[in-house]
Amino acid sequence: MSAVVDLLRAELGDRVDITPAALEDARADKSGHRSTGAGLAVVHAATVADVQATMRIASATGTPVVVRGAGTGLAGGANTGPGEIALSLRGMDRILDVRPDDLLAVVEPGILNASLNTQLAEHGLWWAPDPASREISTVGGNIATGAGGLLCAKYGVVRDAVLALDVVLADGRLISVGHRSVKGVTGYDLTALMIGSEGTLGVVVGATLKLRRLVPGETRTLTATFADVRAAARAAASVTASGVQPAIMELMDAASLAAVHDLLSLPAPEPGAAQLTVQTDGADAAAAQAEIAELLTAAGGTVRLAADDAEAALLWRIRRSMHPAMERLGTTLIEDVSVPRSALPRMFDEIARIEAASGLTIPTVCHAGDGNLHPNFVFDGPEVPAHVWAAADELFRAALRLGGTLTGEHGIGILKRRWLADELGDDQLALQRGIKAVFDPAGVLNPGKVFTAAD
Amino acid sequence: MSAVVDLLRAELGDRVDITPAALEDARADKSGHRSTGAGLAVVHAATVADVQATMRIASATGTPVVVRGAGTGLAGGANTGPGEIALSLRGMDRILDVRPDDLLAVVEPGILNASLNTQLAEHGLWWAPDPASREISTVGGNIATGAGGLLCAKYGVVRDAVLALDVVLADGRLISVGHRSVKGVTGYDLTALMIGSEGTLGVVVGATLKLRRLVPGETRTLTATFADVRAAARAAASVTASGVQPAIMELMDAASLAAVHDLLSLPAPEPGAAQLTVQTDGADAAAAQAEIAELLTAAGGTVRLAADDAEAALLWRIRRSMHPAMERLGTTLIEDVSVPRSALPRMFDEIARIEAASGLTIPTVCHAGDGNLHPNFVFDGPEVPAHVWAAADELFRAALRLGGTLTGEHGIGILKRRWLADELGDDQLALQRGIKAVFDPAGVLNPGKVFTAAD
Ligand SMILES: Cc1cc2nc3c(=O)[nH]c(=O)nc-3n(C[C@H](O)[C@H](O)[C@H](O)COP(=O)(O)OP(=O)(O)OC[C@H]3O[C@@H](n4cnc5c(N)ncnc54)[C@H](O)[C@@H]3O)c2cc1C
Ligand SMILES: Cc1cc2nc3c(=O)[nH]c(=O)nc-3n(C[C@H](O)[C@H](O)[C@H](O)COP(=O)(O)OP(=O)(O)OC[C@H]3O[C@@H](n4cnc5c(N)ncnc54)[C@H](O)[C@@H]3O)c2cc1C
Repeated sequence: MSAVVDLLRAELGDRVDITPAALEDARADKSGHRSTGAGLAVVHAATVADVQATMRIASATGTPVVVRGAGTGLAGGANTGPGEIALSLRGMDRILDVRPDDLLAVVEPGILNASLNTQLAEHGLWWAPDPASREISTVGGNIATGAGGLLCAKYGVVRDAVLALDVVLADGRLISVGHRSVKGVTGYDLTALMIGSEGTLGVVVGATLKLRRLVPGETRTLTATFADVRAAARAAASVTASGVQPAIMELMDAASLAAVHDLLSLPAPEPGAAQLTVQTDGADAAAAQAEIAELLTAAGGTVRLAADDAEAALLWRIRRSMHPAMERLGTTLIEDVSVPRSALPRMFDEIARIEAASGLTIPTVCHAGDGNLHPNFVFDGPEVPAHVWAAADELFRAALRLGGTLTGEHGIGILKRRWLADELGDDQLALQRGIKAVFDPAGVLNPGKVFTAAD
Repeated sequence: MSAVVDLLRAELGDRVDITPAALEDARADKSGHRSTGAGLAVVHAATVADVQATMRIASATGTPVVVRGAGTGLAGGANTGPGEIALSLRGMDRILDVRPDDLLAVVEPGILNASLNTQLAEHGLWWAPDPASREISTVGGNIATGAGGLLCAKYGVVRDAVLALDVVLADGRLISVGHRSVKGVTGYDLTALMIGSEGTLGVVVGATLKLRRLVPGETRTLTATFADVRAAARAAASVTASGVQPAIMELMDAASLAAVHDLLSLPAPEPGAAQLTVQTDGADAAAAQAEIAELLTAAGGTVRLAADDAEAALLWRIRRSMHPAMERLGTTLIEDVSVPRSALPRMFDEIARIEAASGLTIPTVCHAGDGNLHPNFVFDGPEVPAHVWAAADELFRAALRLGGTLTGEHGIGILKRRWLADELGDDQLALQRGIKAVFDPAGVLNPGKVFTAAD
């Protein structure tokens, strides 16, 4: 197999990295899963031509390629194993063009979401997708996973924020999909098809992003505490139903709150109590906050308006500390089901039912503004135990019954392949495999991710 | 071939229509083009099962099927010719579910856009896509063409407003793509792929639409008159660049204005003068209007605020009368290029250049808020003359050079197949044909539309 490395070296020189540390690093993303062993090489692409050369060699030799952004994925999509090349785009991180008049930017895929936004802010602009990982994840990774974020109920997800893409195909050819105009219906929408394709259809090497103007004014934050999580979920659904639009509305259940308070050495919360944290923004931030406070009070919540920015920052720090709080307790499997917003209370009922039946505690946080829940399973050791998968299986089926989906924003990767057919049905799954075969007939792009080996 | 009609009749009875009037009607949409002759039959589907039966028979017998909504398309996509079945969904027009709490509605495809919105208004809701044809076009047709409209710069196009679809495949199987939750990234985004697919991938038999709440408050309308169209285009681009967001911003050039004023027996406009008509809405409609008035005045415009609703209605009637005004002059080819908004002035320069070189007058209206232009070619007789196509060809190439697209909202149909490869490139075109073959291996769904016969 080192013949492949020789071929890569001949074209790409020292951008081909076979140090044990690099190979070890490429084995895992942040899902808690890692590949069965080290890959062949990590290619640190610096240019589109590097990506094309890598794909040409991979295709010629039938070598699988795993594209990597920053490796922060939660589905195992970027994990690189034996016989595979990790193709890292992290080094391609330039902003090529910013057009405030057309509200667009052209960027390379390896730029970190937060660093892009820092630079856009100088123009009074931002790219709205804001995964909690925005400080550490790449725009290319965000596109490849179809990332969501806290602000997405109000400002949209990646799918709403990409105009065009440059894509290197499995055999090294470069295509451009989409256009710089805001409208366009020429042929099938391959831009949308690439979004969320998890490195299985092509390598995103450039992106024309649809921007927004920075929202003027101060933001406002409040929390509301409820006796139990179902009451909090009903209150959140009542906000959605009322028509006031929060910028962010996050829900934490009792187990999540307790774990985070413990991590941050804050006083323990009321046992059983769940919490909503809500941000409003824009010119009517204060009025919207007042309206939401009233709705939440009417729904039985104890509302507290953040007195100042420092208090608001602490409230958001509590929400953002969920991941570290869970990691401290053991290995974490972060689930990602999404349901229609009115079904949130019923989904929490299902979680309670699954907890009771399985004897597990399933600390859950939820983007309540858009109906996306992250139930967490915590366990010892590197492998997800069978009884945890059994409980997760119940969770997925419940979300599908409620009209929802297996994954709101993290993707399928390796972790949810088994359930893909449950959501899509066999006929749709066959079409999806057909599309994969059109783009990647030899199956060199991220084989074994999203789809199980075809049988 | 009447064996096919017998098979259809056996399953669908009198929903199979072979009257000459029906067949004649199905030969054309509103593009001014018609098929070379009458089709085999028109099936008036009443249920999903009817659609499935039709597609099963079509697949079994290798008979082409042309799906039709209301036949208002402007690209010839629904034109049905010899040997083809027209499958009309117009009769499937029920609203199956409206969920104000989840901001969604589930509808059959044949419902007219305006009639859906009338019914949604009772719930304080609307579906944002608003093609100028909304009184006469179906939601299914809007989805299949990826329709845009006047409000789309502010409120989005069809692509932004569909959560899930039920689709009957070429062989009669039924699949469901998407979900009722606002977020979801399970597998490839086939919902997005169906949008704008012009009846070539499957038959949309049900749609879960993403709704908005009605915008509270009054709207405000103004017009601004400029010495020439370039000045008007620059002024429009300056509004976009400023960050104020009009709900609608429409541009009419001198030839369009003159034709419409003549049609409506209004006093002739100043020769050479072009006009912007701008609507603002929402809580800050008045403030936004004032800001836009100032920008347009600074850009050299003579601004007039509509004094009352009656005057505003007249101003919009002028804009909406473009199509009838052109039809009166001869056969019309309505073009549909789209460019980045900052490139509008340059696109008008290109139109002026093409007019000078070809000796044609090209009356042009433009959704200036989103950069989508409708240059009109008017000629005698049913066939587009060669010199008109030559001028249109120049127009398409100019739009592509400016980073835009052949078609912002009308689609490719039969009229723009020749230019598809110019925009997509051969490699992307091959992928698109590959996707078509995955969905429709026998090629029974709208053959010869979008793609030319494969060679
Ligand atoms: C603390 C934490 C919080 C998180 N919060 C969120 C959240 O709120 N919302 C959310 O959606 N996600 C969240 N995530 C998950 C993760 O950050 C996102 O999925 C992110 O989009 C991945 O970006 P990445 O650059 O790390 O991609 P990687 O992990 O490197 O790759 C992810 C997938 O995309 C593919 N890929 C990457 N780049 C490209 C490319 N250029 N072309 C083609 N394919 C490519 C890979 O093959 C892989 O399948 C979180 C993760 C962590 C650790
Ligand atoms: C006066 C006038 C103004 C217009 N203004 C606009 C405008 O502002 N914006 C705009 O975008 N368009 C506009 N149009 C064009 C046209 O109205 C739109 O393209 C509309 O979306 C077509 O809808 P329909 O029901 O008439 O579809 P049809 O014309 O019947 O069909 C259009 C295409 O969609 C396919 N199709 C239809 N229904 C289905 C289905 N259920 N499943 C699969 N395929 C299907 C057909 O095969 C065909 O290819 C205008 C047309 C006119 C006459």
